[in-house]
Amino acid sequence: MNVNGRHYRTIWLNTDGWAVDIIDQTKFPHVFETVTLRTPEEAAHAIKDMLVRGAPLIGVTAAYGMALAMRQDASDAALASAYDLLVKTRPTAINLKWALDEMTRVLRPLAAAERRAAAYARAAEIAEEDVAINQAIGRNGLDIIRHIASLKPGQTINILTHCNAGWLATVDWGTATAPIYTAHDAGIPIHVWVDETRPRNQGASLTAWELLHHGVPHTVIPDNTGGHLMQHGLVDMAIVGTDRTTAQGDVCNKIGTYLKALAAHDNGVPFYVALPSPTIDFTVVDGIREIPIEQRGGHEVSHLTGRTEDGRIETVEIVPRGSKVANYAFDVTPARYVTGLITERGVIAANRGAIAKAFPERAAQ
Amino acid sequence: MNVNGRHYRTIWLNTDGWAVDIIDQTKFPHVFETVTLRTPEEAAHAIKDMLVRGAPLIGVTAAYGMALAMRQDASDAALASAYDLLVKTRPTAINLKWALDEMTRVLRPLAAAERRAAAYARAAEIAEEDVAINQAIGRNGLDIIRHIASLKPGQTINILTHCNAGWLATVDWGTATAPIYTAHDAGIPIHVWVDETRPRNQGASLTAWELLHHGVPHTVIPDNTGGHLMQHGLVDMAIVGTDRTTAQGDVCNKIGTYLKALAAHDNGVPFYVALPSPTIDFTVVDGIREIPIEQRGGHEVSHLTGRTEDGRIETVEIVPRGSKVANYAFDVTPARYVTGLITERGVIAANRGAIAKAFPERAAQ
Repeated sequence: MNVNGRHYRTIWLNTDGWAVDIIDQTKFPHVFETVTLRTPEEAAHAIKDMLVRGAPLIGVTAAYGMALAMRQDASDAALASAYDLLVKTRPTAINLKWALDEMTRVLRPLAAAERRAAAYARAAEIAEEDVAINQAIGRNGLDIIRHIASLKPGQTINILTHCNAGWLATVDWGTATAPIYTAHDAGIPIHVWVDETRPRNQGASLTAWELLHHGVPHTVIPDNTGGHLMQHGLVDMAIVGTDRTTAQGDVCNKIGTYLKALAAHDNGVPFYVALPSPTIDFTVVDGIREIPIEQRGGHEVSHLTGRTEDGRIETVEIVPRGSKVANYAFDVTPARYVTGLITERGVIAANRGAIAKAFPERAAQ
Repeated sequence: MNVNGRHYRTIWLNTDGWAVDIIDQTKFPHVFETVTLRTPEEAAHAIKDMLVRGAPLIGVTAAYGMALAMRQDASDAALASAYDLLVKTRPTAINLKWALDEMTRVLRPLAAAERRAAAYARAAEIAEEDVAINQAIGRNGLDIIRHIASLKPGQTINILTHCNAGWLATVDWGTATAPIYTAHDAGIPIHVWVDETRPRNQGASLTAWELLHHGVPHTVIPDNTGGHLMQHGLVDMAIVGTDRTTAQGDVCNKIGTYLKALAAHDNGVPFYVALPSPTIDFTVVDGIREIPIEQRGGHEVSHLTGRTEDGRIETVEIVPRGSKVANYAFDVTPARYVTGLITERGVIAANRGAIAKAFPERAAQ
C-alpha cells in the first residue's frame, strides 16, 4: 500500500539483487525507516525483535533468511543450522515453521550449487503467494461487507479490529484489513474502530498509521472499549487476524482477541477471522489446551515509547518500581465464538468438518 | 492505609482546622504529593481534573466542597450555587449527587449562621461512614475468600481486579480492595492480578502502588490478559468496584469491566462487585439503556505520562497525528454476569428482589 504517495511492500529485494530490505516497524508510528538484512542472523534478529511482525511477513522474512544463509554456505549443515536459528525466533507463529519447512523441502534435494538461486526463487514465490492470498481474502470479505451494507443502505459500516493484521503484517494488503481496503476502494463507506492493543500498541501504532495513509476513516480506542461499543450498536462486525488456527477452528491471535469475541457473541455482532490458509495448523485441535502461549519481557508492559511534544522519542516507565508485570502475547478464541473464517478459498465455518472440506489436501495429511 | 510507613487517609482537615487536604492522584505512581483545597471551586477542580477519583472519595470531596462554600457564604443562593458547581464535575458518579443532596438536606433547614459548623460536621460524618462501610465490605468479602481458600488449602488465592477501587478511591480501605487487605492481614495467601486499566492506567498507577506499599503480592497485566488467565485456571475470583449499580444489579464501572465479567462467566470464575450501598441508584433499572456514559478528552488515549530512566516525568504521544481517538470512561455489566454484590450489609445476589430486600428503606422510595 502507499506511504507518502509511493507504493511499498513490507519486504523486497535490495537494488544489489541479493540483500533483503524491510520496514523497521519498531519505530512506528513516529519514524518510517527501512533496514537491510544481509545474513540469516540479521533476519532472525528482525523476527525476534519484531522489526517485522505478523504471521505472513514473518514467514516470508524467514524464507529470505534461508536464502541469505544459502548465499553464504549452501551445505546440508548450513541448511539445517539456518533452520534451527530461524525456527526459534517466535514460538507461536505457525507461518514461520511452514515457510522454513517449505524452503527445506525445496532445497534439500538440490545440489549445493543450485540452492542459492532456488532459495531466492522460492522465497519470492512465497511473497507473491501471500499477496495473491490477501487479495482473495479481500474479495471474499467484501461479499460479507456488501451484505451488511445492503441492510443499512447509505450508512457507514463500523468494523472493529484488534492488533495489526494489516498490510504491515503481510507482504501487502493485509489479512483482516484486506476486506476493509477492498470495500473502501469499492466506495462502501467504512469506519474502523482500532483497538490500541496493549502492551505493544500495534493497533495505535501500525493499523491506525496504515489506515491514515490509505485514507480510511478510523478511530483509535483503548482495548477496554469494544464491549461498550457493541452494546450500543456501534459495531457492525469485527474482523481480526490470527497467528494460528486449529483444525477445529480455534483462533490463536494477539492477547485480548478472546475478550472481543465474547463481547461480539453477547451482542450478536458477527466476529470474523481473516486468514491465509497456511496459518491453519491441522496438527492442533484444541487451541486452549495445545497451543503454548509465548510470554514476552515485562519491559513491554512497564515501559512505553512515544513522541514528546517537541519531537523527541522517549521511553517512559508507567508501573511502580517493585511491582511485578506479566506479558502473555496471545490468547485463544474458541471456535464457537467465531462467525466465520475468511480465507483465500471463501468464507468457511469455524468447525472441523467445514475446514477439512475446504482444505482436503491438508486435512488428510 | 500506609504510605512510607505513615498512616494516611485520602482526605483530611488541614491543621488550620478548615481547609481540606487531599492526595494529588494525578501524579501517581511516581510522585506522592498532597494538595490543600480552600474554596468550592478548588474542590470542583479536584474532582473534575481527577486529583481525587473513585465514587466514595468524590462524594466526600463534594461534601467538603459544600463546607468550604458555607465558610465563604452561608446564604441560600450560595448553597444552591455550590451544589450546581459541584454536581456538574463528573456526570456518572452517583455518590457525588448523593453527597450533595445529603448536604443540602442537612443545611437548607438551618439558619445561615449554623450552616458552616453543620456542613463540616456532616462532611466528617460522611467520611467516617465511608470508612465503616469499607471495613464491613472487607469482613463480608473475607467470608468469600475464606471459602475459596478452603477449597485449595495452603495455595495462593488469585484475585483479578480492574481500575482502582482501592483505598485511594475511598477515604480508607477501598471497596474492591477491602476484602483483599482484610484477607491478606488475616494471613490468607493472596496474589492480585492488576489490570492496568487504559486509558488512565489507574490499575498500574494506583492499585499496584497501594498494594506494593501494603505488601500484597501482585502482578500488573495489560487489560487484554484476564480472559487468557481465566481460561488457564489462573484466576480464582474477580472483585471490582462500581460507580453506580442499578436497582436490578447492572453495574456501571470503569470501561472494560464488562469484558472481564464476560470472561469470568465463560470460565466459571466468580465475579464479585464490592460497593457501598449509596452507589446503588434505585431510580435506574436497565443500566445499558439508562446510564449516560461520560466521554472524556482524547488526550488521555493519545498521550501517556511516565518516568524516564533518568527520573524526568514526560508525556509522550502514542497515536499517529491525524488519527481520531475515542474515550468512553465507563461501561455497564449486566446483572446476569455478576456473581454477587459485596456490600456493608452482606453479599447480595445481583437481582431486583434481593437488592430491594437488603435495602428496603431505599428501594421503597
